[in-house]
Amino acid sequence: MTTPALTAERSTPVVAIVGGGQLARMLGQAALSLGIPIRLLAEEPHGSAAQAVAQTTVGDYHDLQTLRQLTDGCDVLTFDHEHVPISHLAALADDGVACRPGPHALVHAQDKGVMRSRMDELDVPSPRHALVHDAAAVTSFADTVGGFPVVLKTTRGGYDGKGVWFVGTENECAAAFETAARSGVHILAEEKVDFRRELAALVARSPSGQAAAYPVAESVQKGGVCHEVVVPAPGLPERLALEAQQIALRVAGALDVTGILAVELFETRDPSTLRRAQESASSGEPGRILVNELAMRPHNSGHWSMDGAVTGQFENHLRAVLDLPLGSPQARQPWTVMVNILGSEQSDVGSMYDGFAHVFARDPRLKVHLYGKQVRPGRKIGHVTAYGDDLDDVLERARHAAEWFRGDLGQESE
Amino acid sequence: MTTPALTAERSTPVVAIVGGGQLARMLGQAALSLGIPIRLLAEEPHGSAAQAVAQTTVGDYHDLQTLRQLTDGCDVLTFDHEHVPISHLAALADDGVACRPGPHALVHAQDKGVMRSRMDELDVPSPRHALVHDAAAVTSFADTVGGFPVVLKTTRGGYDGKGVWFVGTENECAAAFETAARSGVHILAEEKVDFRRELAALVARSPSGQAAAYPVAESVQKGGVCHEVVVPAPGLPERLALEAQQIALRVAGALDVTGILAVELFETRDPSTLRRAQESASSGEPGRILVNELAMRPHNSGHWSMDGAVTGQFENHLRAVLDLPLGSPQARQPWTVMVNILGSEQSDVGSMYDGFAHVFARDPRLKVHLYGKQVRPGRKIGHVTAYGDDLDDVLERARHAAEWFRGDLGQESE
Repeated sequence: MTTPALTAERSTPVVAIVGGGQLARMLGQAALSLGIPIRLLAEEPHGSAAQAVAQTTVGDYHDLQTLRQLTDGCDVLTFDHEHVPISHLAALADDGVACRPGPHALVHAQDKGVMRSRMDELDVPSPRHALVHDAAAVTSFADTVGGFPVVLKTTRGGYDGKGVWFVGTENECAAAFETAARSGVHILAEEKVDFRRELAALVARSPSGQAAAYPVAESVQKGGVCHEVVVPAPGLPERLALEAQQIALRVAGALDVTGILAVELFETRDPSTLRRAQESASSGEPGRILVNELAMRPHNSGHWSMDGAVTGQFENHLRAVLDLPLGSPQARQPWTVMVNILGSEQSDVGSMYDGFAHVFARDPRLKVHLYGKQVRPGRKIGHVTAYGDDLDDVLERARHAAEWFRGDLGQESE
Repeated sequence: MTTPALTAERSTPVVAIVGGGQLARMLGQAALSLGIPIRLLAEEPHGSAAQAVAQTTVGDYHDLQTLRQLTDGCDVLTFDHEHVPISHLAALADDGVACRPGPHALVHAQDKGVMRSRMDELDVPSPRHALVHDAAAVTSFADTVGGFPVVLKTTRGGYDGKGVWFVGTENECAAAFETAARSGVHILAEEKVDFRRELAALVARSPSGQAAAYPVAESVQKGGVCHEVVVPAPGLPERLALEAQQIALRVAGALDVTGILAVELFETRDPSTLRRAQESASSGEPGRILVNELAMRPHNSGHWSMDGAVTGQFENHLRAVLDLPLGSPQARQPWTVMVNILGSEQSDVGSMYDGFAHVFARDPRLKVHLYGKQVRPGRKIGHVTAYGDDLDDVLERARHAAEWFRGDLGQESE
């Protein structure tokens, strides 16, 4: 056992983060534990992440010069969102900036068309899909997947249910193509998957190639927005859980992702698969796994890990982008449930604070995270996490607290 | 079930913190989870806590005007240390500032003479003691406790072993009285307790009177500085653990402490107690509990709770000073061990960072907290926490990591 050689003039690397939302805020919070200095480029001076990062500058990430000023003197660049132009990232990479993830990876989180093609090349199971340029092409595509309805998505710029249309006839395609034409993006048609539920497989991956896979989560969406996450996904057969983790690990490796990769998945109730399963005496397991979307940053489906895992996704993202050995992604207890707090018409910042009196007195084991954001209806302004041995109890605790903060309880009981 | 009445114009209370060290840093980190805005008064602009609190001002807490500027517009004032003059706090309290803890409580953490008198009034078991004004008085005191050696302490200003002398004869008392005269403080003489080990009982207490008691910790000191904390204190009889928690709860209530109260305790090996225990067939439990010191702020003996308890001491301190319901202080696993990282001649900030490569690869379950402080020999610059089911394993993991960061492993193996 020897001590590492020590020299006098070393310092800790500085991490630059683009984007001032809650993901950057929670990255900043994790960086405090590791003593990692953060330099933040935010959209506004006192926003969610700026409250957590002393060294914040305000600027536009669409401007390459602003990005160059941000990264000058930093060791690593990482992101709160996927929206930085790939050409800028390529220029920064040419300058020698360590972009993590790099533009070659990040393009798959920006462009669903590029992502789908790459998944096909990798033989990763995905919904059937095609790039379509007009309504007639949508009908042709529908014919190949058993008819309408089908899903249309903009290849770029969609999130939280925006940029997605479920169309039942050729006549309903106009809105999608108008949006695409206006934004200069393409439209991807996908089969409407008959899914049992949505899952999320998160992995952290470092430039050296180490990877850590979190337990597979069940992710419940409401109106296209993540609402509730249960870990591990209840009743998920071991075979599918392993397959989901393997897909995430394979995609992370093949795309050279660094940091957190979140793979959003469908667990299908495919009749043909059901039939096959019924024929097989050894496995009565219906369903299969299809990749829905990729995100290359800490992800809402991983917020449970802050309180529920040995190493939270924010710390592991930092460790990954710094090429430090990763922390254990294991859960610390049998069940963890995270429920988002969304702003409502009834709620404001003060009502979030006032919620503490009730939720903390009712449940001393509850964990609450508020993001310091202005409350707007539908906006993600915080989340609650409960954990324990009994899933029903944990679900009830987390749901009650989130409903209380949202001001929903009174409405529902009326 | 009804939703609380909501009005349009509310906001979240602002907490002012005096002191820019690691305790304020970790308070700031906890405040981010709760969405509580912090305003910090620090000694320097880029110090440990200033890195974690965007709204930091630099100033001198000995200046009442500076304190008034800090607290103007804040809802609660709390502290990283006990050194703010009581007269200033009394003036602020008269202004209507919610000082938590208040000056009437905090004086017991500032002045060991006041504290000892109050413990006597409360019938709280303490080492025998007397205020002494010269060396002859020390000898008289020694005669009442079975002779020298005795302990001399300045009533104010001592910490981490400073301001404490172990004297074996009347002739050795000069240094203590010279220090006292120079600083304008008094000298307290105490019996040298034959203790088996040191314990710490932490409680959080709110202005409403709710209290939460953490499991009793064993605290190992080196050179008067906290070195290692094991939770729960191994082998501590249930009777003594309960007594320690009851003492802490009683003191917190009687002194009207708000926030965290840490009671440092001696577990004695009192021969008379031993004899009594041997005579009692039903309890083979030697030792008793004596109060050593009080601290009214998050305490080094509670750092384990950040990763090891359901609710960390920093979050519970904030919840307490805001009069919010307290979080569960329960441990999340059978054993938790925290070891401090102290600066050494070999170490610098860079060597702390370089330590990650080894300690994280060796132990993916380890938790590390670095404070962003300049490294100086003997200075507390971080801590590591390990937890698990097997105490020997947890001890080994935490000790190894801390030794690695300190650069001690090579020396010890030479």
